[in-house]
Amino acid sequence: MTDRNSTPLKLEPFVPHLFEEDKFHDECGVFGICNHPESTALTVLGLHALQHRGQEAAGVVSCDKKQFHSHKSLGHVADNFNSQPVIESLPGDSTIGHVRYSTAGGAGMRNIQPMFADLSGGGFAVAHNGNLTNARLLRQLLVSKGSIFQSTSDSEVIIHLVATSTYQKLKDRFIDALRRIEGGFAIVALSDKSLIGARDPLGIRPLVLGKLSDNSYIFASETCALDIIGAEYIRDVEPGELITINDDGIHSMKPFPPQKPRPCIFEHVYFSRPDSLTQGKSIYKVRKNIGIELAKECKIKADLVVPVPDSGTPAAIGYAQETGIPFELGIIRNHYVGRTFIEPSDQIRHLGVKLKHNANRGELEGKIVILVDDSIVRGTTSIKIVDMVRQAGAKEVHMRIASPPTTDPCYYGVDTPEKDKLLASRMSIEEMTKYIGADSLEFISIDGLYRAVCDADRDSDSPQYCDACFTGEYPTTLTDKEQDTAPTQISFLNVIGPKS
Amino acid sequence: MTDRNSTPLKLEPFVPHLFEEDKFHDECGVFGICNHPESTALTVLGLHALQHRGQEAAGVVSCDKKQFHSHKSLGHVADNFNSQPVIESLPGDSTIGHVRYSTAGGAGMRNIQPMFADLSGGGFAVAHNGNLTNARLLRQLLVSKGSIFQSTSDSEVIIHLVATSTYQKLKDRFIDALRRIEGGFAIVALSDKSLIGARDPLGIRPLVLGKLSDNSYIFASETCALDIIGAEYIRDVEPGELITINDDGIHSMKPFPPQKPRPCIFEHVYFSRPDSLTQGKSIYKVRKNIGIELAKECKIKADLVVPVPDSGTPAAIGYAQETGIPFELGIIRNHYVGRTFIEPSDQIRHLGVKLKHNANRGELEGKIVILVDDSIVRGTTSIKIVDMVRQAGAKEVHMRIASPPTTDPCYYGVDTPEKDKLLASRMSIEEMTKYIGADSLEFISIDGLYRAVCDADRDSDSPQYCDACFTGEYPTTLTDKEQDTAPTQISFLNVIGPKS
Amino acid sequence: MTDRNSTPLKLEPFVPHLFEEDKFHDECGVFGICNHPESTALTVLGLHALQHRGQEAAGVVSCDKKQFHSHKSLGHVADNFNSQPVIESLPGDSTIGHVRYSTAGGAGMRNIQPMFADLSGGGFAVAHNGNLTNARLLRQLLVSKGSIFQSTSDSEVIIHLVATSTYQKLKDRFIDALRRIEGGFAIVALSDKSLIGARDPLGIRPLVLGKLSDNSYIFASETCALDIIGAEYIRDVEPGELITINDDGIHSMKPFPPQKPRPCIFEHVYFSRPDSLTQGKSIYKVRKNIGIELAKECKIKADLVVPVPDSGTPAAIGYAQETGIPFELGIIRNHYVGRTFIEPSDQIRHLGVKLKHNANRGELEGKIVILVDDSIVRGTTSIKIVDMVRQAGAKEVHMRIASPPTTDPCYYGVDTPEKDKLLASRMSIEEMTKYIGADSLEFISIDGLYRAVCDADRDSDSPQYCDACFTGEYPTTLTDKEQDTAPTQISFLNVIGPKS
Amino acid sequence: MTDRNSTPLKLEPFVPHLFEEDKFHDECGVFGICNHPESTALTVLGLHALQHRGQEAAGVVSCDKKQFHSHKSLGHVADNFNSQPVIESLPGDSTIGHVRYSTAGGAGMRNIQPMFADLSGGGFAVAHNGNLTNARLLRQLLVSKGSIFQSTSDSEVIIHLVATSTYQKLKDRFIDALRRIEGGFAIVALSDKSLIGARDPLGIRPLVLGKLSDNSYIFASETCALDIIGAEYIRDVEPGELITINDDGIHSMKPFPPQKPRPCIFEHVYFSRPDSLTQGKSIYKVRKNIGIELAKECKIKADLVVPVPDSGTPAAIGYAQETGIPFELGIIRNHYVGRTFIEPSDQIRHLGVKLKHNANRGELEGKIVILVDDSIVRGTTSIKIVDMVRQAGAKEVHMRIASPPTTDPCYYGVDTPEKDKLLASRMSIEEMTKYIGADSLEFISIDGLYRAVCDADRDSDSPQYCDACFTGEYPTTLTDKEQDTAPTQISFLNVIGPKS
Repeated sequence: MTDRNSTPLKLEPFVPHLFEEDKFHDECGVFGICNHPESTALTVLGLHALQHRGQEAAGVVSCDKKQFHSHKSLGHVADNFNSQPVIESLPGDSTIGHVRYSTAGGAGMRNIQPMFADLSGGGFAVAHNGNLTNARLLRQLLVSKGSIFQSTSDSEVIIHLVATSTYQKLKDRFIDALRRIEGGFAIVALSDKSLIGARDPLGIRPLVLGKLSDNSYIFASETCALDIIGAEYIRDVEPGELITINDDGIHSMKPFPPQKPRPCIFEHVYFSRPDSLTQGKSIYKVRKNIGIELAKECKIKADLVVPVPDSGTPAAIGYAQETGIPFELGIIRNHYVGRTFIEPSDQIRHLGVKLKHNANRGELEGKIVILVDDSIVRGTTSIKIVDMVRQAGAKEVHMRIASPPTTDPCYYGVDTPEKDKLLASRMSIEEMTKYIGADSLEFISIDGLYRAVCDADRDSDSPQYCDACFTGEYPTTLTDKEQDTAPTQISFLNVIGPKS
Repeated sequence: MTDRNSTPLKLEPFVPHLFEEDKFHDECGVFGICNHPESTALTVLGLHALQHRGQEAAGVVSCDKKQFHSHKSLGHVADNFNSQPVIESLPGDSTIGHVRYSTAGGAGMRNIQPMFADLSGGGFAVAHNGNLTNARLLRQLLVSKGSIFQSTSDSEVIIHLVATSTYQKLKDRFIDALRRIEGGFAIVALSDKSLIGARDPLGIRPLVLGKLSDNSYIFASETCALDIIGAEYIRDVEPGELITINDDGIHSMKPFPPQKPRPCIFEHVYFSRPDSLTQGKSIYKVRKNIGIELAKECKIKADLVVPVPDSGTPAAIGYAQETGIPFELGIIRNHYVGRTFIEPSDQIRHLGVKLKHNANRGELEGKIVILVDDSIVRGTTSIKIVDMVRQAGAKEVHMRIASPPTTDPCYYGVDTPEKDKLLASRMSIEEMTKYIGADSLEFISIDGLYRAVCDADRDSDSPQYCDACFTGEYPTTLTDKEQDTAPTQISFLNVIGPKS
Repeated sequence: MTDRNSTPLKLEPFVPHLFEEDKFHDECGVFGICNHPESTALTVLGLHALQHRGQEAAGVVSCDKKQFHSHKSLGHVADNFNSQPVIESLPGDSTIGHVRYSTAGGAGMRNIQPMFADLSGGGFAVAHNGNLTNARLLRQLLVSKGSIFQSTSDSEVIIHLVATSTYQKLKDRFIDALRRIEGGFAIVALSDKSLIGARDPLGIRPLVLGKLSDNSYIFASETCALDIIGAEYIRDVEPGELITINDDGIHSMKPFPPQKPRPCIFEHVYFSRPDSLTQGKSIYKVRKNIGIELAKECKIKADLVVPVPDSGTPAAIGYAQETGIPFELGIIRNHYVGRTFIEPSDQIRHLGVKLKHNANRGELEGKIVILVDDSIVRGTTSIKIVDMVRQAGAKEVHMRIASPPTTDPCYYGVDTPEKDKLLASRMSIEEMTKYIGADSLEFISIDGLYRAVCDADRDSDSPQYCDACFTGEYPTTLTDKEQDTAPTQISFLNVIGPKS
Repeated sequence: MTDRNSTPLKLEPFVPHLFEEDKFHDECGVFGICNHPESTALTVLGLHALQHRGQEAAGVVSCDKKQFHSHKSLGHVADNFNSQPVIESLPGDSTIGHVRYSTAGGAGMRNIQPMFADLSGGGFAVAHNGNLTNARLLRQLLVSKGSIFQSTSDSEVIIHLVATSTYQKLKDRFIDALRRIEGGFAIVALSDKSLIGARDPLGIRPLVLGKLSDNSYIFASETCALDIIGAEYIRDVEPGELITINDDGIHSMKPFPPQKPRPCIFEHVYFSRPDSLTQGKSIYKVRKNIGIELAKECKIKADLVVPVPDSGTPAAIGYAQETGIPFELGIIRNHYVGRTFIEPSDQIRHLGVKLKHNANRGELEGKIVILVDDSIVRGTTSIKIVDMVRQAGAKEVHMRIASPPTTDPCYYGVDTPEKDKLLASRMSIEEMTKYIGADSLEFISIDGLYRAVCDADRDSDSPQYCDACFTGEYPTTLTDKEQDTAPTQISFLNVIGPKS
């Protein structure tokens, strides 16, 4: 038996903000494909390529003539969909899928998309990336007329709007629903006759169109999901565009009043994979451009440019190329970092545990170091990184950030802290410099970011983006934000099956 | 490594009808309790006592002021609800629960009750034992008006009827819903203000009322669920009665036109636990009475009365007491029988595998044996039992059945084979005798069964029962049975979470 | 979200002695079969029939020419061995298996038998029912010479004795090992050439020999394991006998000095299944005889004889037949009782939770009841049963026990409490009567038990049994009992595999 | 129900060599710490930092005064040891741990280290990185004298040698054991009195010494395991050195005859983490040096230097700095690649699935590309990478490899293919170039590699390394390699526990 006289371990519960990445999190990725005999296997691959957009859960719905099939799971695509029985359980030639980042609360399982409903006109499934800014209001109206919600997901609002629409045809009912929602959304929908892709009027959330063979079209959040299956990238779905693919071919329409597009600029900064293209342009190249613009704006002499891996790497390469300062891997990332790790006791924590990154002491010792990171959200990671680099012997540590200060939360489907948790909303840059312990701290300007992205300053004539997280200028109304609605009434434990 | 020259095992997939119990299966048990600080723990105990009514899945919904909490699981109550974290996740002072026998198809998880909806008037949960004979028709009507179904369960029909009712008060909406359904049902429902129990106009499915303390009332399918928590049995909920318990106390009403009750007679034969009471009378005593009546009807000289364990035991005791022939455990049951066992290869099967029962050879050798069983459904178990007893050396084997021949399926919530799979619907008793290999086979008469249950022959003046499974006389209309509706359109894989 | 103002549930950790069966537990069952192409499937069936002898874990080792294969698992045989992949992973034509009741401590997995070793003469596997009374001493000797133990199991002592024996032939090494051990044991062993069964010199633990076909012989703890696969019961392995089956046929030898046999009498009282035969006699008939003798010894007038199910049932039938008092199922057992159930809070416990048994009130009310149980160990169940019967309205409750008072622990492989936890070792029968709350309490006499088992009083001429648990007269030396050895030095967590 | 007329999916079983990394795999990492109240939590962190050395399984043994505790698990450290209950189950102030790469066969669980034995002198645990080249011979000798092996692990040979040594003191017995083994090994051992670290006479496998506080010393395979807990790196354990830490302090001895060291050169090429130090030198810097030497040896004009991520990155940076050709991320790695992915059907495979890497088309199109990778083993990955880069539009693809051709397998604890599976052992460089489809292919010379590592050519005066995988010159005898021993005799299924 155990000797109970030894000093007891006191491991406190995990405090997430200390170990979690200090990043904005995109909430979703969507994928849909039609008219391919292996549509489900291809969807699983596509979702795997979009895994960086949401790691908490994934779902797939396939349609096999008039019959729909669904599988949803918490966890990664590769862990839960990557088996012959699962893929065989989802037969058909058209399939849509979804990956999501978690929301708060225990309702996880119920909120996994795609949402499906058996409507009077036939089955209908919807997968949605984005956030509706009037979802709560719509939900209240629907409930008062007898709609029963099974989740707290915005997508279910859309599907109830379709179910209760007074139009006859499914496509008309879907358009009727889209016209009633506001916010940012990229939607892929599946009926027994057609695959539909739609993007909000401002094009806040991304959606691209691809093609694999004759009539086998694909919708995906990013082009990397086309690449993984060897599909051809045709073009971005346009802001406000609705594309339908059915036996008659491919049809585009624009059911909304025209508006100047405002795609999310943060997709360029962090969300999208560097190998994806937006409007035909490589994200990697844009990020290198950001590094180049950043170097132009904030010149400083230094011995090394060191990226905060991995998201700061392209900007750091650009920065190094622009300045001629050597690019070095001064920080090494541990590839086996799990999502969570037990919080060490005080005694251990004071040792300075380096779970995720380690300094490459040999490169840093005695050097003036420029650290390049993509953004600062709460500042928690920056404190640790700067300290680690300094402990490794760096003479000076200068932090350069490849985006402007993030001062405002996003309401369009990105998981951001409340405004008062955002470091830049409560501190001046001088205070932030002190807070993270750097010798200097500079952010790229909003104009510099625009130049890197679209070769022009931010003004009304050049292309515009949704940059609300940097400027607080929200391009849509925020209906629910003013309301104070009672929370939803049921909590669900995750459902547990029997031994198999 | 393994030597692959050895004779390969060829174990075929399990063939259920060979090893499964040859019984009718009740589809559900319900339980509800209000105004008790440990309502969930008590519900879990109550469901455990009702486990014999459904072993495939269980669900619990509790209400903690205005907040509802739910947990559902495939498998047994003791395995899935019997833990502090689960019980703590279901706080409140009112709770309802449900156990169910599986239905065909993969939709298991979605169909687990209680069903919950967040209605405009507040949360509402429903647990239901029985079957609606017009569920499909109602479902089609609801879908055409925009209701979205998440399951194939009858209970969801009820909850959508409540959601879309044009009445204002929740209770009125619930009554409105009940008046539109037909079939057999015993329902326990929970809102944030009241616990409701209701029984169909004919009282086909059972429901009893109990009390634990001042204002803590209980509804349960059987009294054994009251006994397990030490609650007092007050009375049966009457056919067509709706009882509401709220802060004002307990209220009874009868929202249906009055009809002569027709409770299910098979509850006496097999479903209910022998220690439960129906209309104040012990099921064990009724079953012994059936044995006594059976002995009166079908006299034969024999050395032993042997029950087919365990369901034939009370009738066998009655039979033995009436005839004076010794009661002996001539068949021993293996208590560790799982639900399924791999099908042995032909070679092994021919050895006569005795997974579930074994003959007690010492008692049977050279004897004239009367075997008493409660019913014959497909006859599969009877063949094996008779053969086993004969192999053990019995001189003669006479089978006596404590119910009339089961010739017709049930449409009121009991899982029965199709009519053409019922042995008694396609064979004469003589043919059945030959089929099961007995020296003789006799069933109690329908009048004998009535005498055992209510001390009177089956005629219009004495109490009546639903005996459709023996007579084909269904006491309600069977609306859906005539229709030919398309099947529901989605299949769900069981949802699998990540490692915890 | 959950309202945290509600009365919190306080469910304390499970207190086992309140809910566990108040029984002695046999620690093991063994099975072995040779020369059959489906030896593993048949072993799994045989172990399933022996499941009542040990429910905590099971193990199987097969031999496929020179290659051995093993699978072990915590839990029931039907849950863990009943699948094609497991059976296919254990190829060969000879197989042995083992079921065990748990021991204290976390070393469960390591202690699962059969134990296997790759000796210089080839592979050797041993499954053992019983307990060595000099295991600790032998273990110390072996360790001092360099043997490394992987478990705390007695069986590993046997296998190390075989490994380090200086004899050449495996059979001689095995005999050498058996001669150095003392205590009760029934062993089945498997080499690549032969299947061996052996029983301790006194025959304390049981072992029978069966036959399925020409050269396919079987060893098993009880005949019910022969019945399940349709094998023929040849005879009991004799005390002190060692039987070897190899390509030359079947060979018997007696390697120990002859002694008067002393088989365990408690096998008749409780351990063995009622359908098993010992020395050709049915356990059911012996138990009925015990009931008859009990009735002769302790006459009392009563209305009903009620068994404490299920182990008291045969004796109750005998008692009822001898006295003519009606036999009734006055206590109903819940068939879905799991092994453990959360301990209810004080508030609920006071309600008198009836997880396992329920009174059949209709039969008991106003009656003088004779309760028949097989034994009283700590008395915990008896208190609850008597109280339950009384609460159900019984006028008088008279407890009759089908074995003498159990005053002493077993050292031969039966899991018994320490002497001071045995009710009969610290109370007179009068005190026990009061303690359990009965109106009277009587035990069968030791002579009465002998008469029921072997038709003669307990004296030196008639057959003798090990009755140490009733008499404290141990038939072997108890070498380890005097020693005070330090406990083993390692604790193992149960080993957890990756996601599959 | 599902319409079975649709085109069936035909997903073949996973073909590992297509998707697995084409790398040598190190088989183990070890860690040990003494005299710290949180030794187990620190060991878990240390093993996490060593996870790249073995991902299949991990084990930990702690010592709490005289009591030892063990936990082992298949899977990653962060998934299986990162919980309070596990850490609390391993109390003590001294702990050792081990991570391992899988071996073939199902014996996984049994082979997880550390191995523990309860010797006559007390408990003893051993964790071992490396491979003994005379393990089979020693095993046969031990078995013939009665030792029973529970695993197929070399480490168990060591522990049996200790157990059967005729020396008295544990340290002497351990030295006695080490003198009898040959091959490469780095061992951490734990008794109740001391922590021991030992390295083979040639220092083939690495081991470093660190310190956390006064008497709390650490052994680890690499310095990154010191960094993660903030420990100080003291020095490498020297080849042939044995260091003991006990209550008297730290003691070094050299129990072997002196030999010129031959540490594994492949640790510099691939195994070690770039942030680790060997002999005080950063692995990252050595790899950059290799890139520089490579650039000097094989000049070619090009537009871009592109690393094959992530292991080719440091050499590519060196290559780019030396040549002035821009370094670009032309290949993007998917960070969510699981270990395995279902093999796509032929139809899908032909699409060119890019599960793990994607080309960054924008950078590659029309360019002359130099790809830098660390090694080529079978060549499977290289074929795909070259093709992908070409498909993305590269004008020319020149592959440069930061190690000489790997022509021979390793026998010192590295998982390498058989010689005839190594591409370089069966093809000329010209053939390899054709095989992988590159425009040119060059490897660094063995002298170039030595210059990068130790600033001198490979000759007898400068430091020497074990470079057998490039040269076939094995620095030790390979006793077992000549023998033809029968394989071990038992296969174990992974052991499965009950539902928790």
